Amino acid sequence: MNMQTEQLKTLRDAAFRASQNAYVPYSKFAVGAALLMRNGNVITGCNVENVSYGLANCAERTAVFRAIAEGYNGADIVAVVVYTPGQKAYAPCGACRQVLAEFLQPETLITSTSEQASQQWRLTDLLPDAFHFDVSAYRE
Amino acid sequence: MNMQTEQLKTLRDAAFRASQNAYVPYSKFAVGAALLMRNGNVITGCNVENVSYGLANCAERTAVFRAIAEGYNGADIVAVVVYTPGQKAYAPCGACRQVLAEFLQPETLITSTSEQASQQWRLTDLLPDAFHFDVSAYRE
Amino acid sequence: MNMQTEQLKTLRDAAFRASQNAYVPYSKFAVGAALLMRNGNVITGCNVENVSYGLANCAERTAVFRAIAEGYNGADIVAVVVYTPGQKAYAPCGACRQVLAEFLQPETLITSTSEQASQQWRLTDLLPDAFHFDVSAYRE
Amino acid sequence: MNMQTEQLKTLRDAAFRASQNAYVPYSKFAVGAALLMRNGNVITGCNVENVSYGLANCAERTAVFRAIAEGYNGADIVAVVVYTPGQKAYAPCGACRQVLAEFLQPETLITSTSEQASQQWRLTDLLPDAFHFDVSAYRE
Repeated sequence: MNMQTEQLKTLRDAAFRASQNAYVPYSKFAVGAALLMRNGNVITGCNVENVSYGLANCAERTAVFRAIAEGYNGADIVAVVVYTPGQKAYAPCGACRQVLAEFLQPETLITSTSEQASQQWRLTDLLPDAFHFDVSAYRE
Repeated sequence: MNMQTEQLKTLRDAAFRASQNAYVPYSKFAVGAALLMRNGNVITGCNVENVSYGLANCAERTAVFRAIAEGYNGADIVAVVVYTPGQKAYAPCGACRQVLAEFLQPETLITSTSEQASQQWRLTDLLPDAFHFDVSAYRE
Repeated sequence: MNMQTEQLKTLRDAAFRASQNAYVPYSKFAVGAALLMRNGNVITGCNVENVSYGLANCAERTAVFRAIAEGYNGADIVAVVVYTPGQKAYAPCGACRQVLAEFLQPETLITSTSEQASQQWRLTDLLPDAFHFDVSAYRE
Repeated sequence: MNMQTEQLKTLRDAAFRASQNAYVPYSKFAVGAALLMRNGNVITGCNVENVSYGLANCAERTAVFRAIAEGYNGADIVAVVVYTPGQKAYAPCGACRQVLAEFLQPETLITSTSEQASQQWRLTDLLPDAFHFDVSAYRE
């Protein structure tokens, strides 16, 4: 899809607002994510950390899990915009790329924005040769 | 808190409906969770799996992450009801107990229900001596 | 099993030494774990963190994964001793309890030690009503 | 580095043997990984699953965690070879790519092999624009 500048700004604002809900007492690194759904709705997420660091959940995954819980099909996600604090606009971590790859089309645009920067990728550029397979086929 | 029978039934129904949104192509084990919030609202979650099994997220955690993303404080969660398929009512896994312990009071009631069974615990009974600490204090 | 004082000291020393290998640039909280195996060998682990906090792995899990990779059966683990820094002896997080419960007998002793304290539990006390099930049975 | 054919074969054999230790009652998908260390040693890992799917650990991560626990520095890892079952040679999942990126040089070669196929990438090709940052710098 081609996102209009205005739509991107709306998503970026939603991601920024979501970052304000982040629970990040350990990293202090508050991230927000906004998913544009096929029906035009926007689903947001933030990172939620834990004293056992390995149980932290990133903003992108929170948004995806929330979309599924709200009854969307993962294939309904048509664009992802992330807000990361600081100067650089950080790309999603590998775990989030993998979760996105479970649901999104490879060409889906992922945009990261910060106060001063912005970067955009297709999902397939962030996770080339994604690990995917037809489990049921394998089992036979 | 003491939950009324009717309130418990409402939460159980919400958890069951949430389980119908679960994305479980690998385990086929569709779980739903419902959080009762201090303001009376109910926030639900379902499990969301991944071809890389370690990136699966359980229903309880989906609900907690969603509550935080919606702007709630973790301390606003006053009861948790889970729906698990099959005969037995399964308790949350250890990872979910740890995520719940990050936010809930130790006395918070966790109820698991299935088609034919029900079990109830206080969080502190599910995760005694929970791993917790004041990170900032440790750092000095 | 009943651990002799001397055996416990050996395991505690192994856990402490393992903690010195911990990769903890984010939390600075270096933990070590030592597993006593049925054949008398000791397998150790430390925590290994990641800039994406959710990909951190605790010491207890590192030790279990290592034991499996070395060809042990999970049932060969007969005792677990953990070293945590600071004054208090911290219990394993919920995720580690769940991983231990996949393999260990419920009565297996888990001991946590720090410079100044020590605590001991049976696994079943740390993760009562552990989430377990016969997946293959469920599938039919 | 340029791996000799013979060295690659040695690593591939080690990864295959490691896969035979995999604990995979849920996916039945037994993976092995072998790390070539700077000193010529080989450290292996396998996947270790859990009834709570999200607590599964992949072979690549088991090998990295084991290397750290054995006292290696992550920077000592100079090549990674994975064995995956079936016909296709699968690339590591996103979570494993992120854990590898915490430690390896971007140019490090990752090779995946199966019974009938083989693929090779540089780490930077598998996880372009990897999420990395200097946390301490951010905190100020």
